[in-house]
Amino acid sequence: MYEMMPNLDPRSGKSLYEQIYGYIKEEIQKGNICCGEKLPSTRLLSRQLGVSRSTAQLAYEQLLSEGYIESVPCRGYFVCQMKELYHLKLDRDSFLQEKPENPASARCRYDFSPNGIDLEHFPYSVWRKLSREVLQDDQKELFHLGDARGEPKLRAAICTYLHQARGVQVQPSQIILGAGNDYLLMLLSRMLGTEHRIAMESPTYRHAYDIFQRLGYDCCTVMMDKSGMNVEELKECGADIAYVMPSHQYPLGIVMPIKRRQELLQWAAERPERYIIEDDYDSEFRYIGKPIPSLQGSDSHQRVIYIGTFSKSIAPAIRISYLVLPYSLLNRYEQVGRSFSCTVSRIDQRMVQLFMERGYYERHLNKMRALYKNKHDILLSELRGLKCVQRILGDRAGVHILLQMVSGKSEQEMIERAWKAGVKVYPLSEYCIDKKKYDPTVILGYATMSEKELREAVKILKQAWD
Amino acid sequence: MYEMMPNLDPRSGKSLYEQIYGYIKEEIQKGNICCGEKLPSTRLLSRQLGVSRSTAQLAYEQLLSEGYIESVPCRGYFVCQMKELYHLKLDRDSFLQEKPENPASARCRYDFSPNGIDLEHFPYSVWRKLSREVLQDDQKELFHLGDARGEPKLRAAICTYLHQARGVQVQPSQIILGAGNDYLLMLLSRMLGTEHRIAMESPTYRHAYDIFQRLGYDCCTVMMDKSGMNVEELKECGADIAYVMPSHQYPLGIVMPIKRRQELLQWAAERPERYIIEDDYDSEFRYIGKPIPSLQGSDSHQRVIYIGTFSKSIAPAIRISYLVLPYSLLNRYEQVGRSFSCTVSRIDQRMVQLFMERGYYERHLNKMRALYKNKHDILLSELRGLKCVQRILGDRAGVHILLQMVSGKSEQEMIERAWKAGVKVYPLSEYCIDKKKYDPTVILGYATMSEKELREAVKILKQAWD
Repeated sequence: MYEMMPNLDPRSGKSLYEQIYGYIKEEIQKGNICCGEKLPSTRLLSRQLGVSRSTAQLAYEQLLSEGYIESVPCRGYFVCQMKELYHLKLDRDSFLQEKPENPASARCRYDFSPNGIDLEHFPYSVWRKLSREVLQDDQKELFHLGDARGEPKLRAAICTYLHQARGVQVQPSQIILGAGNDYLLMLLSRMLGTEHRIAMESPTYRHAYDIFQRLGYDCCTVMMDKSGMNVEELKECGADIAYVMPSHQYPLGIVMPIKRRQELLQWAAERPERYIIEDDYDSEFRYIGKPIPSLQGSDSHQRVIYIGTFSKSIAPAIRISYLVLPYSLLNRYEQVGRSFSCTVSRIDQRMVQLFMERGYYERHLNKMRALYKNKHDILLSELRGLKCVQRILGDRAGVHILLQMVSGKSEQEMIERAWKAGVKVYPLSEYCIDKKKYDPTVILGYATMSEKELREAVKILKQAWD
Repeated sequence: MYEMMPNLDPRSGKSLYEQIYGYIKEEIQKGNICCGEKLPSTRLLSRQLGVSRSTAQLAYEQLLSEGYIESVPCRGYFVCQMKELYHLKLDRDSFLQEKPENPASARCRYDFSPNGIDLEHFPYSVWRKLSREVLQDDQKELFHLGDARGEPKLRAAICTYLHQARGVQVQPSQIILGAGNDYLLMLLSRMLGTEHRIAMESPTYRHAYDIFQRLGYDCCTVMMDKSGMNVEELKECGADIAYVMPSHQYPLGIVMPIKRRQELLQWAAERPERYIIEDDYDSEFRYIGKPIPSLQGSDSHQRVIYIGTFSKSIAPAIRISYLVLPYSLLNRYEQVGRSFSCTVSRIDQRMVQLFMERGYYERHLNKMRALYKNKHDILLSELRGLKCVQRILGDRAGVHILLQMVSGKSEQEMIERAWKAGVKVYPLSEYCIDKKKYDPTVILGYATMSEKELREAVKILKQAWD
C-alpha cells in the first residue's frame, strides 16, 4: 500500500482536504501511484496525516467523483485504470499564431463612412429611464426564456409600425425577431434550404452577399438599371430567390418604381418556390415626401420575405432585427425554425417595446429624419460646383450619396488624394461583385459627421480634387 | 389631358399635398387615368385645385419617387406603364389559420421542471446598479457594432473564469460569444459543415438533438453506461463528432470518470476531423467537492469544442453563451464565421463583464450553489423511504435528480398519479431518442421550487405513489 507524504500547509489558503486531494491526484498523474494500487483507508490516512477523518473522507470523495480512484465495497479504495495521464499543459506554439485583436484601421480626420449612424443624438436619457423601469420590481418573468419568435407585445408593436409606416401586410405571428440581420438570414436559410440560386443586385450590399455565400448559397449578380434589378436578366440567370432593396438600394440609392416592382412580383409568382427577400434597411429616412410603401405590401402571392432592423433607426448595438414571413413559410418555421431559442434578451425586447408604444420611436425617427435631412442638404449644397463631379446619385433618402466622377478620373486616384488630405471616402467598385465596368464613383456617408465637419470635409475635398 | 377632381378637405388631418397624391395614386390604380396619359402641369394643377404651386409640386414628387408618374423634359408629367395594379388588400383567409400564441400549458401547483432556475435570488439590485452605470455618461461607443467574436474584455473575463473554475485551456481569441447555445451550434455548423455524423448520448438533452437534426446533421445515439458514452459503441456507429456532457450528463447526471475521458479523447485523436463537443451546461453547481475539470482541459490534440452558457448560472434571458474553439478551428472561424456580426448587445456584454470582474459572479455562484445544495439535501432527505423508488440517480450536482422506480411501476402511471395530486414530474423516456428500454424513471428538477414547496410536493408524491 502506498504511503502518503503530502506537504500540508495550514496557511496556504487551500483547505487541508484540497491539499490532500491535489497531492494524491498529482501522484497518480505522475505514475507514483500505479493503477490498481490500494490506498490507505480514511481512518489510516487521517492518522498518518494528523487530520480529521472527515477531511480524509472529503479528499477521497473528490478523487472518486473525478474518477481517479474507485471504492470497492468491503475492500477499500483503489487507483483506477487510465490509458494515458491527464495533460493540462498544452503545446500552443505549434498552432496558429495569435493575431492582434481589432487591428486599428488607419483613421482619417474626416470619415464619410456609409455604415455608421448619428449617435450624438441618441436618446440616452430615455433609454436609461426605460432600463430603470424594466429592471425595477424584480420582474422575474423577464429573466426566464421567452417566446422563440420574440415577445408577443414587441411583435405587435412592430406590426403596427410596419403596417402604418411601411404598408407591410402583417400579423404578429408572421414576425420573427432575431439578434441582427446576419442571424435572421442564417435562420431563414434553415427554412428555405440552401438548394437555391440567389440573385443579388449589382452593385449590392457586399456583407449580405458574403453572408449568403457563407451560408452555402449559389449567388449570382444581376445588373441594376435606373429602375433597379433588371428583371430580364434575372429571368435568364436561373435564380429562384432575388434579394433586393427596393426602398433605397444600397449602394446606388435607387428607389424601385412601381412598374419594376410589379415585374419583380410577377417573376416570383410565376413559379412555386420563388421568393423575393426585401431588405428594407434604411427606409425610415426619406427626405422628400413620405416613405415609399414596401414591396411586401403589394405582394398578393405571398412571395416576399421582408427583413428590417433597428440597427439604423435606433443603434447597431441594439441587436434586434425582424423577419416578416409570408404565410406560405410559417409552417416551415414551425418545423425547422421554432426550435431555435430567441436570440434577443427579453429585457432588451421590453425596452424597445416601451420605446415604440410610448411614442419615443416615432419622435426619435422624426428627429433623426430632420437631422439627416439637414446634413443631406448641407452636403449637397457644399458639393455644388465640384468640377470633377459629373452627377450626384442616391440622394433624397438614406444616409449616403454617390458622386459620379467626370471621365478621366479613377476612383482610386480620387480616394487617395482625399485620403492624403485627411478625408476618407469610399469606392463604389468595392460593392461591384461581378467586376463589370462602372463609371468611377465614390460613396459619401454623412450620418456620423456633424454639420460643421461636413462643411470642412467638403472644403478639403474641393482642394484635393479640383 | 385628365382633369383632376379631388375632394380636398383642409380639416382631414392630412396635408393637402398628401390628399392630392393619394387621389391621383388611387385614380391610377383604378384605371381612371391610363398609362401614357399626360397630367396637368403643376401650374395648371395648382390653379385647378386652388392650392399653391409647391403643394402640387410635392404631390408630383411623391408620385414620381414611387414610380406612378414620370417626368419627360420639356413635355410634362405622364402616367407610367404598369402591368398590374398595386394591391394592398390581401386574401388571408385562404392561408393557414393563426394559431393561438403560447398555448398555456396546463399548470400544476408544484412543478419539478428540470429546465428552470431559481430567480427568487437573482441579484436584481446589482443588475440595476450595473445597468445604470453602463448607460450613464452617454457611452456612445457601446451603441456601435462591436467585435464579431464578442467584446475583448468580456472574453478575457470568461477566460479567467474558465481557466480557474473549469480547468479550460483557453486564450481570449478562442472564445466566440453568441446569443444562446442554439445560435452557437448554428454558427459552429457553418464552420464544421454538415457532412458529419454526430453521436449523442442516449438518453440526452433532446433539445440539442433536435437542433442538430434541424441543422441537417445525421445524428445517432450511443448508449450510456455507468461511466458515460460507451466508446466501443461510438467507434462502431461511424460518427466523427461526439456530443457529450462529461461534468454532469443531462438527464442521467453521470460524471464521466477520467478513464472514459481518456478513451474519448483518444477516439477523437485517432482520425483527423474528429471532434468532441463538450457541453458544460451546469458545471457550476456541484455540491460535493470542487467542480470537476472540463474534458477540454485534458485534451492535448485540439479536438474538444467547449460550449458554456450563462443561462443556468445567471439567467436564461441573459442571452450569452460561449464557444471555446480549438486552435485547429480558428482559421475556419475566420473564413466562414467571422462575417456574422455578434448577436449579443454590447450593453449586455459590458454588464456581464463588470458582473464578473467585480466578483459579483463568484459571489452569486457561491450563493446559488449553497441554495441549490440545500434544496438538493432537503429533496433527498424527504424522498427517503418512498417505497416505489428503487434508486436515486444523478444527485451531487446540477439541479435535478432521477428516481428509478421499483419494477412493476410504469413512468406513465407514476406521472399521472402525481399529476392528479397536483405535482408535475417528468419522464426519462422523453429523453430516450432510440426508444430502447430503460427502467422506469422520473426526473425531478428542484431549482425553481422553494424549500417549503419541495417538502410539500414530496409529501403529496408519497401519498400519490405509495
